[in-house]
Amino acid sequence: MQFTTALLTIDKNHQVPVYLQIANSLIGYIQQGRLKPTTPLPSSRIMASALNVHRNTVVAAYDELYAQSWVDVVPRKGIFVAANLPDVSSRPISKDVKPNAYPSKTFFEVDDNKVSYISMYKEKAGHNLTFNTGMPDTRLAPVELMVREYRRFAGYHFTQKYLMYGPEQGSLNLRTELSRFLGETRGLQVTAQEIIITKGAQMAIYLTAQILLSKNDVVIAADPGYSGANEVFLQAGAQLELVPVDEHGMDINAVEAICKKKKVKLLYVIPHHHMPTTVTLSSERRMQLLELARKYRFAILEDDYDYDFHYSCTPILPLASADYYGCVIYVGSFGKTIAPGIRIGFMVAPKNLITQATRLRRLIDRQGEQLLEEALANLLKNGDIGRHLKKANKIYHERRDVLRKLLQDKLSDRVSFKIPDGGFAIWIKYLNGINSTQVAEVAATMGLTITDGADYYFDNTYQHPYIRLGFASLNINELEQAINILAHAIKKLS
Amino acid sequence: MQFTTALLTIDKNHQVPVYLQIANSLIGYIQQGRLKPTTPLPSSRIMASALNVHRNTVVAAYDELYAQSWVDVVPRKGIFVAANLPDVSSRPISKDVKPNAYPSKTFFEVDDNKVSYISMYKEKAGHNLTFNTGMPDTRLAPVELMVREYRRFAGYHFTQKYLMYGPEQGSLNLRTELSRFLGETRGLQVTAQEIIITKGAQMAIYLTAQILLSKNDVVIAADPGYSGANEVFLQAGAQLELVPVDEHGMDINAVEAICKKKKVKLLYVIPHHHMPTTVTLSSERRMQLLELARKYRFAILEDDYDYDFHYSCTPILPLASADYYGCVIYVGSFGKTIAPGIRIGFMVAPKNLITQATRLRRLIDRQGEQLLEEALANLLKNGDIGRHLKKANKIYHERRDVLRKLLQDKLSDRVSFKIPDGGFAIWIKYLNGINSTQVAEVAATMGLTITDGADYYFDNTYQHPYIRLGFASLNINELEQAINILAHAIKKLS
Repeated sequence: MQFTTALLTIDKNHQVPVYLQIANSLIGYIQQGRLKPTTPLPSSRIMASALNVHRNTVVAAYDELYAQSWVDVVPRKGIFVAANLPDVSSRPISKDVKPNAYPSKTFFEVDDNKVSYISMYKEKAGHNLTFNTGMPDTRLAPVELMVREYRRFAGYHFTQKYLMYGPEQGSLNLRTELSRFLGETRGLQVTAQEIIITKGAQMAIYLTAQILLSKNDVVIAADPGYSGANEVFLQAGAQLELVPVDEHGMDINAVEAICKKKKVKLLYVIPHHHMPTTVTLSSERRMQLLELARKYRFAILEDDYDYDFHYSCTPILPLASADYYGCVIYVGSFGKTIAPGIRIGFMVAPKNLITQATRLRRLIDRQGEQLLEEALANLLKNGDIGRHLKKANKIYHERRDVLRKLLQDKLSDRVSFKIPDGGFAIWIKYLNGINSTQVAEVAATMGLTITDGADYYFDNTYQHPYIRLGFASLNINELEQAINILAHAIKKLS
Repeated sequence: MQFTTALLTIDKNHQVPVYLQIANSLIGYIQQGRLKPTTPLPSSRIMASALNVHRNTVVAAYDELYAQSWVDVVPRKGIFVAANLPDVSSRPISKDVKPNAYPSKTFFEVDDNKVSYISMYKEKAGHNLTFNTGMPDTRLAPVELMVREYRRFAGYHFTQKYLMYGPEQGSLNLRTELSRFLGETRGLQVTAQEIIITKGAQMAIYLTAQILLSKNDVVIAADPGYSGANEVFLQAGAQLELVPVDEHGMDINAVEAICKKKKVKLLYVIPHHHMPTTVTLSSERRMQLLELARKYRFAILEDDYDYDFHYSCTPILPLASADYYGCVIYVGSFGKTIAPGIRIGFMVAPKNLITQATRLRRLIDRQGEQLLEEALANLLKNGDIGRHLKKANKIYHERRDVLRKLLQDKLSDRVSFKIPDGGFAIWIKYLNGINSTQVAEVAATMGLTITDGADYYFDNTYQHPYIRLGFASLNINELEQAINILAHAIKKLS
């Protein structure tokens, strides 16, 4: 077949640039064998005129074809389909064996319960209103600041460095800025050497569990608590010992009772707005807990994921700020500060533990996203993160107060609650036997997604009357709509 | 103190915008207590005139101060330092306990050898030439394509979704595009359900090891081999059984000899350019290996990290393409296609294993970078990745041939080697007792960083004469310079 421009149709409004449309069409004809090797192609001038495009567009298309070895350019003669076409096929392993659908089950044995089960992400259907369990509003995420930092990188020669492998412990710039930030906001006197950057607080918890725990080691956690941590401890082979949590936080007497009976290896605590009940661990209990850790020589894993969000009073400093002995492993996250999908967390611990964590991280996924880490380092340095936190706190403070008022005005006979000092959610108790699963089902039919309260208690077969109602991700209008639907749903049930 | 504009100095050439310079200076004076609550501030008009800036700049500064609650705006009266200043302090846990330097060693016990040791990233000193062990050239990374995709996201409302939590198994768009790409390039007939997106091939190896292996399970790998995988198997508690590798790849008779003696759980193989020796596993041995896996019921972990880079002949399809039984776990990466610092890899396996891998990934770090995954999905869909690979292959092919010629011309009496079919490096044997450690030391003094050959053999106390010489990350000029230095360094030693 000879080439004719009638073979090509282009669409100037398509998102694929015109020169690529031309190049791709030609590659298609060559791959199909319709344009044979050594077939001459028209000059760029003739092609441009026939297609009614600028000549440079055709030149760009031919450059692309040449770069990919689909054409030969013979000086003073013209452009031809390449005499030796690029390899486009692969060799099957054997002539007798043809590619087949991949088997759906392994031939070798896989223990279906080797990994702890935890409830997973579910795709949201439609454009429902959602009362999530306590997430920031991604509409407030400082995306334009991140984009600004990425744009800066685009112009820098040293960006090449960040495209190669980098330090497993995380960006030194970020660790340096973070040590300053932790000092200013949390009274933590740490150096960059005592910090490892992780993928969210989750990875910091995983690293700690894998390094510290051996089979049957005892771990203390609160119930209700954070299943995302509990499952990590179980996965590492630990025995979980659960203690109650009241309005001042974890029950420290219950902790001591366990210590007297068993050798405890690790205690997991969320001191600053306990997940899920939102209570703050009191100063007195913090001191007691540090004293117990020293006396019984266990490690405290302090998960302080929402320290930066407080509205009612100044926050109490972390346990790590008063740790003279080296009992506390401190983990935090920028997932709430920037956005949950931006996975940057950190772990602060004595150097010997950071060394082990860094080695393990090398084995798991080698390193984090260097460009993201450098961008965050700049945002911390410029004060942008501090400014963003101030603004976001002001907005979330207002939303918390709006939700409180709405609950008081419209649901005071249906729910009881205590207002949290900070964070993203209110812990609510349904009164008079209202069933949280049924509420969630009815609300869904009315356009509101709301938690059914599963996953908060370790024994999730027990139907309890509590849910977490996130206020941060909804604006004032949305909060009003959502509470109206919730009130209707509850009314319908009673 | 009353406010006077003499307090403020601004620098219009500074990277911090002028409005932020004004706002930050004022915040500083307020924090220091020099500007007391209720102090009036000048109108924007007067301030703008005094500072010689546009009035909108001052308005923006005041907006910033207001957003952060540092000022009160009283209609028709003016702007005042806020009567109630934002909380800037935190409460110490107890008056008796003051923040202190963080201890450098844990009080609780940490096993310093709990995590396998593997050599770590080292910061490169200065701007030396580097013969790395086989990396792509980050100067060719399609950064502008990634940036184009990120720019597209900036305009889309649905980007908010990608800033929230997402699917632990990875973007469905990416898995769908990848299943098509794997079909076209590798004859793999898999669906999106049989793929999990990981942080590089490294995380796929880690997930496999943690799910399949229990203490003392037997894993077969080649020696020399990839220490980044071997250490993961050891970390999971496995016993390593090492088999030799010759010019056709892993010695399959040695594999069978082990199977006859012990129950083998997993075999790790890099069929397409073995790391480090660059040999390709022959078709015959691939069939033998599949047959052994079926007979002795072990899992094959096929690490095909550089399948997309081949120069001399069409590649042999992966073992996974001929796996009728469900013996093969297939892992790969886009780290070489885009850049090593862009951490996207994948694992293909029967669904029951993918389910376990997804659960474990949820515990480790919850999920990957959604925006990055969506960007890559688009690049695969547009054909941009395919085009980039064609161009990069052409360039690396040329560099391989240049390095071959340089070695023949300048070092033929010092080294022997066999040219690889693809990949990023040539496996070189130093002749006549040349010591690879000494060569590396002398070359470093002459401005060339070159591997000393450690980490390839499992027994790294043994001084062997091999190194891997990466050709892909150096252009032709740099290859010439580097070989000249290497030749001089070797000459100096003899």
